[in-house]
Amino acid sequence: MKVGVLGTGFVGQTISTALVEKGHSVMIGSRSANNEKAIAWVENKVNAFAGTFEEAAQFADIIFLCINGAFIKETINALNFAIFSDKIIIDVSNPLDFSKGMPPSILPAYSNQWSLGEEIQQLLPKAKAVKALNTVTARLMVNAELVNEGNHHLFICGNDTEAKNTVKHLLSENFRWKPEYIIDMGPIGQSRLMEGIVPFWVGVMQAIGTPMFNTLIVK
Amino acid sequence: MKVGVLGTGFVGQTISTALVEKGHSVMIGSRSANNEKAIAWVENKVNAFAGTFEEAAQFADIIFLCINGAFIKETINALNFAIFSDKIIIDVSNPLDFSKGMPPSILPAYSNQWSLGEEIQQLLPKAKAVKALNTVTARLMVNAELVNEGNHHLFICGNDTEAKNTVKHLLSENFRWKPEYIIDMGPIGQSRLMEGIVPFWVGVMQAIGTPMFNTLIVK
Repeated sequence: MKVGVLGTGFVGQTISTALVEKGHSVMIGSRSANNEKAIAWVENKVNAFAGTFEEAAQFADIIFLCINGAFIKETINALNFAIFSDKIIIDVSNPLDFSKGMPPSILPAYSNQWSLGEEIQQLLPKAKAVKALNTVTARLMVNAELVNEGNHHLFICGNDTEAKNTVKHLLSENFRWKPEYIIDMGPIGQSRLMEGIVPFWVGVMQAIGTPMFNTLIVK
Repeated sequence: MKVGVLGTGFVGQTISTALVEKGHSVMIGSRSANNEKAIAWVENKVNAFAGTFEEAAQFADIIFLCINGAFIKETINALNFAIFSDKIIIDVSNPLDFSKGMPPSILPAYSNQWSLGEEIQQLLPKAKAVKALNTVTARLMVNAELVNEGNHHLFICGNDTEAKNTVKHLLSENFRWKPEYIIDMGPIGQSRLMEGIVPFWVGVMQAIGTPMFNTLIVK
């Protein structure tokens, strides 16, 4: 599979590395073609490439969006929207605002009645946005078995059922998420809920002293 | 123990009934002394009383606040603040806005950077507000063992450590919450997080088809 990962931060690099290790071809995308972090990431890896956001999106069968939530709108607005047509975008981003201290709040533009997931789908109506992985820490995103033998829940949402099934399969095959532990929350508007719990997630992390945890829904 | 329960809705009645069954004296409080639901609730119960909000607060060693979040500010503002001095208020309320459909959003006044828990503490600075139980359905609030043998987490917050310990003890003794599964999230400002996840809770309820569930944090 050819994957484009937009964003060279810790989340983007963690996902990119995990996918390369699974044998996929990955182009990590950034604002400029000469991004130092992207070039450093490529070194000594097979089927690993660096490019601009547009090059990575063009290269890809499937796209991970791992850009800081505060910059997603302006970033997407600067791109050629046509590149994203019919492609699945797995939106891992969170609209966190750390400017007022810890735990973070949500960036006001995305709080309560709007969300990054929806905005991405609105900006790129021909793409298939699927919100996923934003509710766990990066290391856990790419290896669910690091916690409780993989018995804990991941939440996804999106408007396209087939795209959600593709993402489920990808997460299961590559990142060890058990399909029966992936809860489909519904259409992309449910991103409000999935993004809205992230400040709580940070609070729990502070309370229990580790980011290596997740939620198991018990009945 | 003498308990005042402010609010005669399903949550208030469920908590009141559970406490009476445990042998406590409970006064359920409402806006007027002649509230029909309160009077009906009292019938055929021992040590069960109905009164105004002020009477119930005056009566009580400890107070449960189970009023619809939209009306808490005006309700408290109409009361004699002195009654609440030094008393523990267990704030079970949520600031949900169902006016835009399901799942609900948060009432804008309490979204993201403010919360009901904080507002109650600010309005009643001599009381000891402890946010608790707002993240589970009413039946589960009063009997944690109804789900996964009681192995799942409750989150509380508040500024007064002793008050939080009293609440923990109360929840453990009366409602079967295991102390080791109660996570202290910190000061009352963490109500933002605990209230902020409730729309997500509703989304999960819709996705899995039952309100009888809770979160188990797994590491």
